[in-house]
Amino acid sequence: MIENVAPRLVALDWGTSSLRAYLLGGDGQIIARAEEPQGILQVKDGDFAGVYGRIVGPWLRRNAAMPAIGCGMIGSRQGWREASYAACPAGLDALAAALTPVETPLGPFRIVPGMNVIDADGVPDVMRGEETQILGQFGPGQNGVAVLPGTHSKWVLVEDGRIGRFATFMTGEAFAAMKDHTILGRLMTGTASDASAFARGVDHGAKPPDGRGGLLHRLFSTRTLGLFDQVKGEALSSYLSGLMIGSEIAEAVAWLGRAPDRVSVIGGAALSDLYVAALARRSIMSAPGTPDAAAQGLLRIARAAKLV
Amino acid sequence: MIENVAPRLVALDWGTSSLRAYLLGGDGQIIARAEEPQGILQVKDGDFAGVYGRIVGPWLRRNAAMPAIGCGMIGSRQGWREASYAACPAGLDALAAALTPVETPLGPFRIVPGMNVIDADGVPDVMRGEETQILGQFGPGQNGVAVLPGTHSKWVLVEDGRIGRFATFMTGEAFAAMKDHTILGRLMTGTASDASAFARGVDHGAKPPDGRGGLLHRLFSTRTLGLFDQVKGEALSSYLSGLMIGSEIAEAVAWLGRAPDRVSVIGGAALSDLYVAALARRSIMSAPGTPDAAAQGLLRIARAAKLV
Repeated sequence: MIENVAPRLVALDWGTSSLRAYLLGGDGQIIARAEEPQGILQVKDGDFAGVYGRIVGPWLRRNAAMPAIGCGMIGSRQGWREASYAACPAGLDALAAALTPVETPLGPFRIVPGMNVIDADGVPDVMRGEETQILGQFGPGQNGVAVLPGTHSKWVLVEDGRIGRFATFMTGEAFAAMKDHTILGRLMTGTASDASAFARGVDHGAKPPDGRGGLLHRLFSTRTLGLFDQVKGEALSSYLSGLMIGSEIAEAVAWLGRAPDRVSVIGGAALSDLYVAALARRSIMSAPGTPDAAAQGLLRIARAAKLV
Repeated sequence: MIENVAPRLVALDWGTSSLRAYLLGGDGQIIARAEEPQGILQVKDGDFAGVYGRIVGPWLRRNAAMPAIGCGMIGSRQGWREASYAACPAGLDALAAALTPVETPLGPFRIVPGMNVIDADGVPDVMRGEETQILGQFGPGQNGVAVLPGTHSKWVLVEDGRIGRFATFMTGEAFAAMKDHTILGRLMTGTASDASAFARGVDHGAKPPDGRGGLLHRLFSTRTLGLFDQVKGEALSSYLSGLMIGSEIAEAVAWLGRAPDRVSVIGGAALSDLYVAALARRSIMSAPGTPDAAAQGLLRIARAAKLV
């Protein structure tokens, strides 16, 4: 909490499983924050207005003219109001030009568009929320590569301060489905973190596919290495995690067309640590993302929209 | 049922989810057969001897000297008696030399070993039962490539009548886990077979990974093509099935080092039809497997062991 800064923006990072709300000063200072397990799937009866009023009402009632903005799955078909998708490449201006307002008793709440891209196969890909984190992480004119690990990991190529292209990898959700709902979980006797088994999995997953089979084949190694006692039961979960993250990195490197020198890892600490370790095994340096990147991105978008 | 042939062998294909028993003549004629949902996971309290006696007792009690042999997961750690693995390459003689006998009141029941191989990554792979189907399908001196589709699909390279090498792909089980336990199932509104969506999935899964991302990325297309109404909800299950079978074929072709001219597809009719259709999209001819290949393989192994 900061006392001597004037509040300028209410910013919400409202995703599938959690809601993070920030009261921001004009330079991005976080004056107050709230985090609640009120992701769009948890909000009862779709009463987004009720949750909104309860969480940000105390801030907005003191300053009725203060703008409010949000990003994430709150703008999806299952959210409060469906917001559009901005096509790649796009930066602050394109997102600021396509905000979707929701009228509330506390004034308008503006939702940042998601982004879409057509991949090299001609298939659409989408994200909601990550675009804002990226634009909070990378300033105008910057270039770089970022990964946002999670249920659906996103890899993003940033060019001249804009999002050039991105790709989704279902690593986290596929890991959970394979561990909990296939034979691979049968030999697992715990989920303790095992760095050595994780590293072995990363190395195995990141090998080139030619002549060796790809992921559908390699997944089975989680069973056979367990059967032949080459990886202990308590380490098999770490092995599978490494195998899938290693596969994701190999796919992402192919997607980028080159191994990047450096990747920004934007996400929670535990999962980010695994990605940092996995990237290091591929000799790729990584840097942790800015804390509260979404809040900084929302402020930049609000500024570009001349709301602040 | 054949009346005029003398029974020479009791042959059991005893897998994870079903038991198929055959009473065979000396030339492989099927004199009688029984099929029950008594796979090793369904046998109560591990009473394999009870199930065995009930199903093959009527045959063996009429002819106490008749040999009995079986293959499949009945020889696994979770089965009746753990049988060894024969290492690749191996054929009839190697398997016949490594039978594991179980003493029963009806005489010895001999279990065919599984097979193992070390893949190009240095990781073991295993199968139990498929080796016997293959040796029933391919005669001495023959060469070829076979796929046995299923929960864990096996691709097998047959060289000079022996199993040269093989690889497991977790296609069937990964498909079920992704469909039933991830976001991909959310937009599915049925599981009717849709040939056009299946073909689109095959084509997408079989594309080369470079620059396009691999399976972890492509899986997400099942969601985005649904979101953007490019594939209807009732066809998304077929699309995902095609995507995964197409990925398996691409991995298997890389594993073989070349696209084979012709593949024998050994399995149940519905799944085999999907593989035949998917292989055709890659311009690979396919031939259906011999019916009851396991029974023929068991007879050949029994002959090689001089039991018949």
